[in-house]
Amino acid sequence: MKKEPFVTKEKIEEIVKEYPTPFHIYDEKGIRENARRLKAAFSWNKGFREYFAVKATPNPYIMEILMEEGCGFDCSSYTELMLSERVGAKGDDIIFSSNATPNEDFLLARKMGVQINFDDFTHIEVLDRLCGIPETICCRYNPGGEFKTSEKGNVMDTPRDAKYGFTHDQIIEGFKILKNKGAKRFGIHAFLASNTLTNEYYPVLAEILFKTVVEIKEKTGVEISFIDLSGGIGIAYRPDQLENDIFEIGKGVEKAYNKILVPAGLGNAAIYTELGRFMLAPYGHLVAKAIREKHIYKEYIGLDACAANLMRPAVYGSYHHITVAGKENAPCDFKYDITGGLCENCDKFAVDRMLPKIETGDYIIIHDTGAHGFSMGYNYNGKLRSAEILLKEDGSFKLIRRAETPTDYFATFDFDEKYRF
Amino acid sequence: MKKEPFVTKEKIEEIVKEYPTPFHIYDEKGIRENARRLKAAFSWNKGFREYFAVKATPNPYIMEILMEEGCGFDCSSYTELMLSERVGAKGDDIIFSSNATPNEDFLLARKMGVQINFDDFTHIEVLDRLCGIPETICCRYNPGGEFKTSEKGNVMDTPRDAKYGFTHDQIIEGFKILKNKGAKRFGIHAFLASNTLTNEYYPVLAEILFKTVVEIKEKTGVEISFIDLSGGIGIAYRPDQLENDIFEIGKGVEKAYNKILVPAGLGNAAIYTELGRFMLAPYGHLVAKAIREKHIYKEYIGLDACAANLMRPAVYGSYHHITVAGKENAPCDFKYDITGGLCENCDKFAVDRMLPKIETGDYIIIHDTGAHGFSMGYNYNGKLRSAEILLKEDGSFKLIRRAETPTDYFATFDFDEKYRF
Repeated sequence: MKKEPFVTKEKIEEIVKEYPTPFHIYDEKGIRENARRLKAAFSWNKGFREYFAVKATPNPYIMEILMEEGCGFDCSSYTELMLSERVGAKGDDIIFSSNATPNEDFLLARKMGVQINFDDFTHIEVLDRLCGIPETICCRYNPGGEFKTSEKGNVMDTPRDAKYGFTHDQIIEGFKILKNKGAKRFGIHAFLASNTLTNEYYPVLAEILFKTVVEIKEKTGVEISFIDLSGGIGIAYRPDQLENDIFEIGKGVEKAYNKILVPAGLGNAAIYTELGRFMLAPYGHLVAKAIREKHIYKEYIGLDACAANLMRPAVYGSYHHITVAGKENAPCDFKYDITGGLCENCDKFAVDRMLPKIETGDYIIIHDTGAHGFSMGYNYNGKLRSAEILLKEDGSFKLIRRAETPTDYFATFDFDEKYRF
Repeated sequence: MKKEPFVTKEKIEEIVKEYPTPFHIYDEKGIRENARRLKAAFSWNKGFREYFAVKATPNPYIMEILMEEGCGFDCSSYTELMLSERVGAKGDDIIFSSNATPNEDFLLARKMGVQINFDDFTHIEVLDRLCGIPETICCRYNPGGEFKTSEKGNVMDTPRDAKYGFTHDQIIEGFKILKNKGAKRFGIHAFLASNTLTNEYYPVLAEILFKTVVEIKEKTGVEISFIDLSGGIGIAYRPDQLENDIFEIGKGVEKAYNKILVPAGLGNAAIYTELGRFMLAPYGHLVAKAIREKHIYKEYIGLDACAANLMRPAVYGSYHHITVAGKENAPCDFKYDITGGLCENCDKFAVDRMLPKIETGDYIIIHDTGAHGFSMGYNYNGKLRSAEILLKEDGSFKLIRRAETPTDYFATFDFDEKYRF
């Protein structure tokens, strides 16, 4: 499928008059339409709710949009809880999924009254000692073994080697203990694969969880109120990949629900999701400028962006599609490495990529950076992290995070006059 | 070789009364002694100077120590130039080695009068147009092809696929042009391998560069004044690895110098190095606390540090040695995965590591984090970057970077009252 950018060269030229490249830009229209599709795909489930994985794109203006679309937030840390609260989320609008959780994070989550998802059996005692067990509590399940769908080459995690969750016996025992400690509303959660491109992943995972939920009811009397399928629905980063069909996925989960939960008298259980990549990745671009060219053993184009703005290609070798703004329909008959300026040879956005001829000054659109893009940015080589811009539904744009300045970069030396910038 | 930490449990207990874990701690004594060894190893060369690679550990208090030991600074960006200037470096105290260099970085480097190392042939024209060619100028050489030493499995870069430097013909042509444009003092630079553990790397690289320097003199009349061997000298992260012998390395370079440069009448050329890892890595520890334990399909210990504080194990699978403070001599008869709290399964500081039995509350010392440790930190999952502490020669300690706070993390939303924290 041809990957088309959601901004034009003309729009970029308008934006850079106010905000220079590089910047991440997000497509409000795309974000809203996609959130509505997800909601429609699970509309068969009365309690369905998407808890956006804040870690993917921890920007309050994006979170506001998602909240308007009915989403809650999946928070993994103290600052994500703070941010969600400021956006206006409270109590059941939030699920707190964390591991090796510090005491202060547990305390804040408990104070905010959010749904806490225990990563580990030992956390029951930790939280109980710290501040007591809340009425609503969720446990993360790790079935162990290997996890397979029919998708080739995308068994991302081997659950038995993953650091997350309760074992089978622990989860049975855990719910017994939690019930005895006075918990009244229970959830179960699992995450077994990342960035899947098969419509099977959620249905297969749902079946595992639904069966476990039935078993928990039989063995402990605990009726699970919500089943959190977590994340794992991916996106097609490459033009030759086939997108997920979220309606097929919703139907697959519904089928398992009707087969397993309904006959067991558990037909009121709500389905939760914690999607990040699926919700945002395609609706973000990193826009950079070609500032240098280089002709040595290969042809290079150097950008004003680098791995500080988008780390995935450098550290994971991830493919991100690239469009040269204004050359959308030009033939791709030049082969380039598209590089950032870090002193790391891996700082390349693309290797041996066929693209139209690029001139210095061209704007380069890097696709699918809406999730795990800005959020994984760092300051290596003293590089500064970029601004974030929202392209609104009416075509206007708005700054939703300013670019870092040297003052930000040096802020943690501010206790010393000499190194205050 | 047994890896011993440079801090004791008692010292850590003293420090945490003021500065809680996690933090990076640096050993002033070790840093100074090592810097002196390097200087001694190259004392045969009159103009020798180490330009510390600021990117490895961009902390001004560390830089002050290195400056006292006679080092200059290798800067790769605008902020690194700013920092070096504030530390007190000027002109030839600095070499600016950057690629895909933005105009503003070139302008600052030129204004500060530092030694500019061109990454690319096209940069000659760029700088000339921007602000003219300075009297002192350096060019980075990329000989192409493959680069091999006798070291097994450590051919880190294949020069022909690396984004850096001038080709052979470009470097000859480049020096001709620079001479015509009025440059008077010339340098040459190359970086062909990273983290080598053979005493051969520098000597082999030096031989390539020295021969090129002779050829440049013959073909262009340009006499190279300094030859920058750049970085690449590694350290033994694993106890079973053999450390480099810096005196052997110095002798190897001297031998090539006497064989090639002296007979060509180039016996005044200075040798520069741009070491980062070698200068700092072993003299830094990340000190964290074991805050959680987990018993599922494997045994886990969860720390209060994560990949936000040290990314190398998570993204490169790098080995970092671990000592449990106070259990230095206890038998290592427990097998653990030592994890951080990121929602990323790769956030593990160690996998299947044999260690003494760890109790919650134990301090965990992660070795060799003095370079590319703090500096590669990020804020993924909303995690905050840690403090840095200097362990001084007299055994006292000093805060040299404060820990980030949520206010720092949210600073780039400060244009909006609602999201000012």
